[in-house]
Amino acid sequence: ACPAPVAAYVPATRFGDTIIVSGQLPSVKGDFSAFTGVVPNQISVEKAKEASQICFLNNIAAALTQLKNGETLRLVQIQGFVQSANDFHDQPIVLNGASELAVQILGENGKHARTAVGVSTLPKNVAVEISCTFQAIKE
Amino acid sequence: ACPAPVAAYVPATRFGDTIIVSGQLPSVKGDFSAFTGVVPNQISVEKAKEASQICFLNNIAAALTQLKNGETLRLVQIQGFVQSANDFHDQPIVLNGASELAVQILGENGKHARTAVGVSTLPKNVAVEISCTFQAIKE
Amino acid sequence: ACPAPVAAYVPATRFGDTIIVSGQLPSVKGDFSAFTGVVPNQISVEKAKEASQICFLNNIAAALTQLKNGETLRLVQIQGFVQSANDFHDQPIVLNGASELAVQILGENGKHARTAVGVSTLPKNVAVEISCTFQAIKE
Repeated sequence: ACPAPVAAYVPATRFGDTIIVSGQLPSVKGDFSAFTGVVPNQISVEKAKEASQICFLNNIAAALTQLKNGETLRLVQIQGFVQSANDFHDQPIVLNGASELAVQILGENGKHARTAVGVSTLPKNVAVEISCTFQAIKE
Repeated sequence: ACPAPVAAYVPATRFGDTIIVSGQLPSVKGDFSAFTGVVPNQISVEKAKEASQICFLNNIAAALTQLKNGETLRLVQIQGFVQSANDFHDQPIVLNGASELAVQILGENGKHARTAVGVSTLPKNVAVEISCTFQAIKE
Repeated sequence: ACPAPVAAYVPATRFGDTIIVSGQLPSVKGDFSAFTGVVPNQISVEKAKEASQICFLNNIAAALTQLKNGETLRLVQIQGFVQSANDFHDQPIVLNGASELAVQILGENGKHARTAVGVSTLPKNVAVEISCTFQAIKE
């Protein structure tokens, strides 16, 4: 029998003080079921906004594993992908869930550049996927 | 009444000499109306190429705010998203508007890596969205 | 007659020890024809997985041109876009072709953060497009 493949991609990588996090889905303990579907037909904008908050929290969790003693996180970029109906153009509203939470958690260090895009389909049929870039800074 | 939320995302962030710009839309003084629709059915390739130039100029404007005295911009990456009909595959032609302008403005410092993708929908129904990464270099 | 435009975008750029590669298509000597179509209706998941491997090899080739003597590549991020049917949600399986190859080629230096997204259309009707970020490290 073939051995299981080595884990190839990881939740986050660090080089210098830059931390890049893998695209995070709105999973709560591995369960995506509350946040699947196309926005806004199958999942509401409000619910998708909540999904974006969970994606962001999962980004924070992954990034924290890359910090050394005496360091903290500064968020520099959010890349957000919203599984959207063709005529839905309010991806920024959905991603405001993540953006507002970033500033609540990190304060001035939460202010970030952001790219908001609508896509036709995402892994596991989730409504939102978010990948963040952080800088590790001195506390 | 609730206070207005703090501005969470910003036009650009800088860490070290890296400047990341938020996804810019083809807005002229806040007006997107000339550059909306799906390429090529609702907006022509030529018009979308013009939109990509405006997106790029808005990236330059945002990046310039992050420079210190004696520094200038070097463009290292363009990420371009084109709101496309399913059977439209000439996203590179649309984004050449931005790429050619980059070299006209920045010369050798305008040569960049580029990712060109077609998506089903973008914020505000715009035809093109572009996010750039710059390096701040000595003049 | 107008002069030919200057090459504006390039296969890869480097700033400091960061190397960003342009979105690579699954081309073999300039030929995409074996890897076009929408996954899984027009091209199978297995074939698209093979396409992702070729995209990754093209990323490696572009990144290698940016190395100096005594340096080698560490992969820090894969951004993968899969041209997908609206109800296809297994982009991660397609991109595992690239991810597993990364670890086979680069070992520990191949472990990366990854963003997997489905899009409605890609340049030249290819099934997969991949853009990588590498770090140049001492051998």
